[in-house]
Amino acid sequence: MNAEIIAIGSELLTPFRQDTNSLFLTAQLNRLGVEVSFKTIVGDRRADLVRVARTALSRADIVIFMGGLGPTEDDLTRECVAEVLGRPLQRHARIVEDLRARFAARGWKMAENNERQGDIIAGADALDNKRGSAPGQFLHIDDENGNAIVILLPGPPHELTAMFEEHCFERLKKLAPEQHIALRELKIGMIGESMVDKRAAPIYKAAQGVETTILAGSPGEVQLHLRAQAESMEEAQRRVDALASKLEDEFEDAVFSTNGDSMEQIVGYFLGMRGFTLAAAESCTGGLLAERVTTIPGSSRYFLGGAVVYSNELKTALAGVPPLLIAEHGAVSSQVAAALAEGIRDRCKSTFGIGVTGVAGPGGGSPEKPIGLVFTALADGKNTEVVERTFPGDRDRIRRWASQQALDMVRRKLM
Amino acid sequence: MNAEIIAIGSELLTPFRQDTNSLFLTAQLNRLGVEVSFKTIVGDRRADLVRVARTALSRADIVIFMGGLGPTEDDLTRECVAEVLGRPLQRHARIVEDLRARFAARGWKMAENNERQGDIIAGADALDNKRGSAPGQFLHIDDENGNAIVILLPGPPHELTAMFEEHCFERLKKLAPEQHIALRELKIGMIGESMVDKRAAPIYKAAQGVETTILAGSPGEVQLHLRAQAESMEEAQRRVDALASKLEDEFEDAVFSTNGDSMEQIVGYFLGMRGFTLAAAESCTGGLLAERVTTIPGSSRYFLGGAVVYSNELKTALAGVPPLLIAEHGAVSSQVAAALAEGIRDRCKSTFGIGVTGVAGPGGGSPEKPIGLVFTALADGKNTEVVERTFPGDRDRIRRWASQQALDMVRRKLM
Repeated sequence: MNAEIIAIGSELLTPFRQDTNSLFLTAQLNRLGVEVSFKTIVGDRRADLVRVARTALSRADIVIFMGGLGPTEDDLTRECVAEVLGRPLQRHARIVEDLRARFAARGWKMAENNERQGDIIAGADALDNKRGSAPGQFLHIDDENGNAIVILLPGPPHELTAMFEEHCFERLKKLAPEQHIALRELKIGMIGESMVDKRAAPIYKAAQGVETTILAGSPGEVQLHLRAQAESMEEAQRRVDALASKLEDEFEDAVFSTNGDSMEQIVGYFLGMRGFTLAAAESCTGGLLAERVTTIPGSSRYFLGGAVVYSNELKTALAGVPPLLIAEHGAVSSQVAAALAEGIRDRCKSTFGIGVTGVAGPGGGSPEKPIGLVFTALADGKNTEVVERTFPGDRDRIRRWASQQALDMVRRKLM
Repeated sequence: MNAEIIAIGSELLTPFRQDTNSLFLTAQLNRLGVEVSFKTIVGDRRADLVRVARTALSRADIVIFMGGLGPTEDDLTRECVAEVLGRPLQRHARIVEDLRARFAARGWKMAENNERQGDIIAGADALDNKRGSAPGQFLHIDDENGNAIVILLPGPPHELTAMFEEHCFERLKKLAPEQHIALRELKIGMIGESMVDKRAAPIYKAAQGVETTILAGSPGEVQLHLRAQAESMEEAQRRVDALASKLEDEFEDAVFSTNGDSMEQIVGYFLGMRGFTLAAAESCTGGLLAERVTTIPGSSRYFLGGAVVYSNELKTALAGVPPLLIAEHGAVSSQVAAALAEGIRDRCKSTFGIGVTGVAGPGGGSPEKPIGLVFTALADGKNTEVVERTFPGDRDRIRRWASQQALDMVRRKLM
């Protein structure tokens, strides 16, 4: 079975707004073994909407309309789809009463326009909307005119996702041919996308019956998405697991996540589990490392804090780097990275200290110390490890690579 | 004139990838007075692509195809569009030679497949691609079969944007009826979207001939996009300027940008211009404030650094907050925010010091200090100003609101 997803709303045809609902719906449909063949975005113009609906019904088994279910004159989805299907709209008294009660509960009188939200295409089920006023609709056509599934969903993402999960997924599962689809995701750290592809391609190309998608995440993260469809769930699972295990053998400890967790989550688990704490002194990452670590709820248990030390004076004042060391080796050096890590660990009394110093650009590069050169250090009180890398890309990407490198050093230390 | 934009590639029909090129193209087309009526996303299947091309040519004056111009068997855009137009493909020897030279320059021999990239639809101009191998195509049809403009562009964003700007914009300008469109953008800080709309709506609704779009940016930023189309450029400009000036009167100094600059850029300009410096001690924002400030190239001139002080001990060790003050008022308090700002200013010897402390959640809230409560302080050596706000949303949004509040305080101080 295949599907078309149609997003409706003139605001989606401006340079400012983008349909994101379709990514969620695609993931859900794929779980059911349904492929999305077309996505269409159309404005609130009646003739355009009718034309798009007609085209979609001629080329897809499942057509999902998103948006245009509100009470205003611009909300034309109900009428246009009914017209194309040649079915009347029927006003459901119960829905209108519920709408009126919603308004009354806030002390408002409902405008007559709103009654239109109770119009349901003949033969369709109305889908309850707990998070908004517009109900959805689910219509399964299976008669002499053909076979089709037509779904109308509200546009706001939180309404749409809840309604799909609560009312559409199980209905579709009953109607779609039974499918057995297994998914796996591996995340690989600190190897570039093309190198990952070069090493992974011979492995996933040799695997039978598994689809593999390689996706570059933030710098320093590459995702491998595996998907198998088979006669039985066991067989589908066996196939993705077999390929995942071959890929893990190839990439070994560069695989930092096998269940979708982010690098900062993984580092958080490891630190929390062992009761260790972390502090960081950042120069070129400018707070990005601390920001990433503290994105995780509960990170205050293992992240004590740290310093952002852009100026040389602050490297000394906040992280105790000897001024002579900076004078001798320069602020961007292996020695200063190590001193930052040791100094901040000392000041913060943490288990581990991280130091990051580098040239993020666009200014400040030189032949000896080019843009992208970053030293990352990890101190544990006995040893201090320093990694030197020259990262590609612009300021933003270099900073992201550097923060990923620092987190990856902590992860490897704790593995 | 209206346009349809078609993105081609099976990866755009997965849950992982999204077309973003169409936002750029929409902005460019709107500048020419061309409205986008439809956007379509289709995979690399020949029958689907032919069907989509046929539909688009029947409903739009300008049809732009993106992607599917590479050398592989999946790259079918050239052939499918030629088929629908009923025009042959002609292999351009010059393009094939250029491709071969590209390969030779890297010491590679070009595979025969690559010659397909030299196939140009009869009557179309080949568009040079400085950043990749696939040339684009521009075809203006104006004969007994009708009138249409068909453009083929490569999918990679940096190739597409450069090619459109270099080769398509001026060509389209000559073909599109002359339009006079003026644009303005205002950014408003620290007021919620619904409140901005409530105050702005009576003003922009009363303005004649200006379209206004309200858009929520990151928390603490709301954008007002104004657009006027008129008989002359002077008139279009007069209309957007008149509305912009009324909106500036309404929102006064909450308008932080009138040319698209971000809050961190504005703060950077102001600090740099006056030769002032900044340092920050962050608790709940966890480095986000420093990260935002240092996103700007050259920020090392005015941002000295700061401390991320999650633990109470570090508030004392790195920012000099007296332990008794924390014991008496709690870490999340006006007094501790002020002490953080004053302490970090003192340690860093900066013109201004910022202190941020609050409850970002999801844990740690209490009836007296609920999730979202944030104290932000700005110290200049004489006075210390503290703002107390309770921000809505989840951990991420609360942290973004708080960082925006801190930057906005610096901006207002320097205005």
